[in-house]
Amino acid sequence: MTGQLDIIGLGPGRQEWLTTETEAILARASDLVGYGPYLDRVPHRDGQRRHASDNREEISRARQGLDLASSGAHVAIVSGGDPGVFAMAAAVFETLEQGDAAWQSINVAVHPGVTAMLAAAARLGAPLGHDFCAISLSDNLKSWEVIERRLHAAATGDFVIALYNPASKARPHLIHDAFTVLRETKEPETIVAFARAVGRPDEHMTLTTLAKADPALADMSTLVLVGAHATRSFEACGRRWIYTPRGTGGV
Amino acid sequence: MTGQLDIIGLGPGRQEWLTTETEAILARASDLVGYGPYLDRVPHRDGQRRHASDNREEISRARQGLDLASSGAHVAIVSGGDPGVFAMAAAVFETLEQGDAAWQSINVAVHPGVTAMLAAAARLGAPLGHDFCAISLSDNLKSWEVIERRLHAAATGDFVIALYNPASKARPHLIHDAFTVLRETKEPETIVAFARAVGRPDEHMTLTTLAKADPALADMSTLVLVGAHATRSFEACGRRWIYTPRGTGGV
Repeated sequence: MTGQLDIIGLGPGRQEWLTTETEAILARASDLVGYGPYLDRVPHRDGQRRHASDNREEISRARQGLDLASSGAHVAIVSGGDPGVFAMAAAVFETLEQGDAAWQSINVAVHPGVTAMLAAAARLGAPLGHDFCAISLSDNLKSWEVIERRLHAAATGDFVIALYNPASKARPHLIHDAFTVLRETKEPETIVAFARAVGRPDEHMTLTTLAKADPALADMSTLVLVGAHATRSFEACGRRWIYTPRGTGGV
Repeated sequence: MTGQLDIIGLGPGRQEWLTTETEAILARASDLVGYGPYLDRVPHRDGQRRHASDNREEISRARQGLDLASSGAHVAIVSGGDPGVFAMAAAVFETLEQGDAAWQSINVAVHPGVTAMLAAAARLGAPLGHDFCAISLSDNLKSWEVIERRLHAAATGDFVIALYNPASKARPHLIHDAFTVLRETKEPETIVAFARAVGRPDEHMTLTTLAKADPALADMSTLVLVGAHATRSFEACGRRWIYTPRGTGGV
């Protein structure tokens, strides 16, 4: 009895940002496993079982998915965004590496999706048009010293910087501290965008500068983009855009 | 007369990696504008016009799209991957900023897609499970000094590194020189993956280490992923995977 474990992502918010592959898997799977609010975004289908869990239960969720698949089920483990970016794919492989022998017969596959920074960038123009990096500010699983060192490297290399998990209720200070680190190296006029709830009805974008950026604008639903030296802003076609030219020489 | 300009991406290779939004735009557009090999991936539709152009003609292609849209057409400018990552969106905004007054009435929108590093990562496991960066090695539009500085910053910050445009016929040495820079800072056993033609019938993955990585494995259709210190490799479920644990503390 061979089960199937598909690790998928719903994209950030809009049904239209799912890939057709992910839609097909959601239609075929016998069991959906995921964080409750993500499963809530998937239409109910007769006969399909749902296994919702809380945030920060990634490893037990991965075990549950692997166990269901090893009993012959077709399991979809559901993340938001892309499943490989600060999401469930890494947790599944961490679990699988420690793994039960019973899991070895499972067909495991990861399927790409649209991660939040790509959707935020599209809404804003083309800020990721040149070299960029993605940093999670969550210090649940790594030390602040590592985060600080990466922020410093990203600023020194003049990358456009996408900050995931910029703040949580328990840790509202993360983005404040990140701005402090970035201000040591980057210019005050560096463009900063707060992209909140991208693709959802309450989507809200704020454009500002590193000097003026207000940490209070970031919450768990926000992606923060910090421009490179060359990232520009201009008005056209009735609105303001930001983009990073392809030919930026850096500072 | 208001035209529409949609800037879209086809994802890397597989029809199933298009978003449903991008599929709908391809079905509705009156005119498709893009690099010939990308347009060749889109099924022909009666009455839909195609405007294929060569590589390195990004600015004239952007002008063509804007001109068609300002005359009332519904234009889709088509990239591979995600249109905002080393693709057409930045070229369109560079052009629009210089812009003709006639372009101001156009409705412009960018739509996210699956960029090559997300698809390559999915095929390999979860190498982007932690902080990462994307660097284009193409030195058409930036100096090698800038590329070298960014590689050094990425290595110092212990990011997972996705290298786009690692080599071209005119510049086969780019990836060789990049490995030389990375070897100065990163350990010889660092995992390196060559992901060639991801999502296409001739897809081919090669896993190796930074010490052994052969630059000849990279061509224009290859994405090269260089692991962080914590990126791991293991065998399970009949194949080899690589992933970067969520909790990596860095070196």
